[in-house]
Amino acid sequence: MSEAAVRVIGLWASPYVIRVLIALKLKGVEYEFVEEVVGKKSELLLRSNPVHKKIPVLLHHGKPVSESLVIVQYIDEVWSSSSSGGAPAAAILPADPYTRAVHRFWAQYADDKVPSAVRILKGTDAGDKEQAAGQLAAALQLLEQAFVELSHGKRYFGGDSVAYLDIALVSHVGWVKAVEKIAGVALLDKAKVPNLVAWADRLCAHPAVADAIPDADKFVEYSVKYGSFSKPINGPAK
Amino acid sequence: MSEAAVRVIGLWASPYVIRVLIALKLKGVEYEFVEEVVGKKSELLLRSNPVHKKIPVLLHHGKPVSESLVIVQYIDEVWSSSSSGGAPAAAILPADPYTRAVHRFWAQYADDKVPSAVRILKGTDAGDKEQAAGQLAAALQLLEQAFVELSHGKRYFGGDSVAYLDIALVSHVGWVKAVEKIAGVALLDKAKVPNLVAWADRLCAHPAVADAIPDADKFVEYSVKYGSFSKPINGPAK
Repeated sequence: MSEAAVRVIGLWASPYVIRVLIALKLKGVEYEFVEEVVGKKSELLLRSNPVHKKIPVLLHHGKPVSESLVIVQYIDEVWSSSSSGGAPAAAILPADPYTRAVHRFWAQYADDKVPSAVRILKGTDAGDKEQAAGQLAAALQLLEQAFVELSHGKRYFGGDSVAYLDIALVSHVGWVKAVEKIAGVALLDKAKVPNLVAWADRLCAHPAVADAIPDADKFVEYSVKYGSFSKPINGPAK
Repeated sequence: MSEAAVRVIGLWASPYVIRVLIALKLKGVEYEFVEEVVGKKSELLLRSNPVHKKIPVLLHHGKPVSESLVIVQYIDEVWSSSSSGGAPAAAILPADPYTRAVHRFWAQYADDKVPSAVRILKGTDAGDKEQAAGQLAAALQLLEQAFVELSHGKRYFGGDSVAYLDIALVSHVGWVKAVEKIAGVALLDKAKVPNLVAWADRLCAHPAVADAIPDADKFVEYSVKYGSFSKPINGPAK
């Protein structure tokens, strides 16, 4: 039996994996999902990402690509038109260099701020949790402003189409909603970040996204079962 | 007096600033360097990068771009042919998507490993220094292998031309050479990483690089004057 041309090594609960799946779905690329077992690194993973030993890894005709945002850019560059023979797939990176730079800036910002706060909010230290909730709320406030500036009153950070920053940010939404339940805090709060809440609802209903992001309850369950996501043996790649 | 079309807010000693200057020089773009004063953030910096308040910032017709690798990609995308009317400037990102992904992977790796080790090697804890020297040597070993694979026996990571990973990595060379002197360790060691040593010598003599990276002694002097570069008030952007 031959291997699929495109395989993704990952865990469904990792935001870094989720964004790779969304990018592939947006491009209409068929792929095989090779699910890791929590706490055990597969031989395939160790061989494919010997430097970091982390998910996600994209295998394209057997050649590995690591680091989630590197993978998303790779997908955008390789499948610049639909591989399924249908309508050409929309570009993920915006066409304008300045807008691209702004998307890259905020994607990096989200990766710096959101997962670190989420980790603490899943923990048990009340003081740390309060501080992390404050920092995450402040980050979401800046992202709310960025949305207003980038979307020009349209549906997504990319305007009419789902773009780089949409993918990078929405991949964190499952865990943000989960820690709202775990820590009992309101983060995606309509009173504070109305545009971001509407954007998240809209994007999570998008066919390329709906399948990739399970319900918040699934993330809560995962957190209960495996403890903090902060030190998984199969850690998410940056 | 009108402002220059391209301005860079920075400090000469920051590797993150150095890479922006190299990219501009490679493209033949004229720019004004707006030097910050160590320990004082200028109004221009605070206004241009209100989120991180960090150098470097590229101002292009007044519009700010932050985060050094985002800036390098922006420069590559905007000046895709020489703006000085001469021969078209070579592309910084390799043309092949897989090679681009590999360059992006190692550039991120270098930024994760090199500055953190350099910081410790400028410090005073002997045990920490030994560990950091070991980690940096291991990182350079992997980069040596990456050079062999990517250069195909040619001059640079980009083959015949200076490319993304060349720029990202060479910007750290000044500080690596400085901490060899400060900590009394051999890092760019011909016996261990011969290809990387030859690459660094070659690239540091390149006209676009020679001006941007002062002698190691200047970095040593800077380190003595301002102490550790780890917590400068004008911190380098990631």
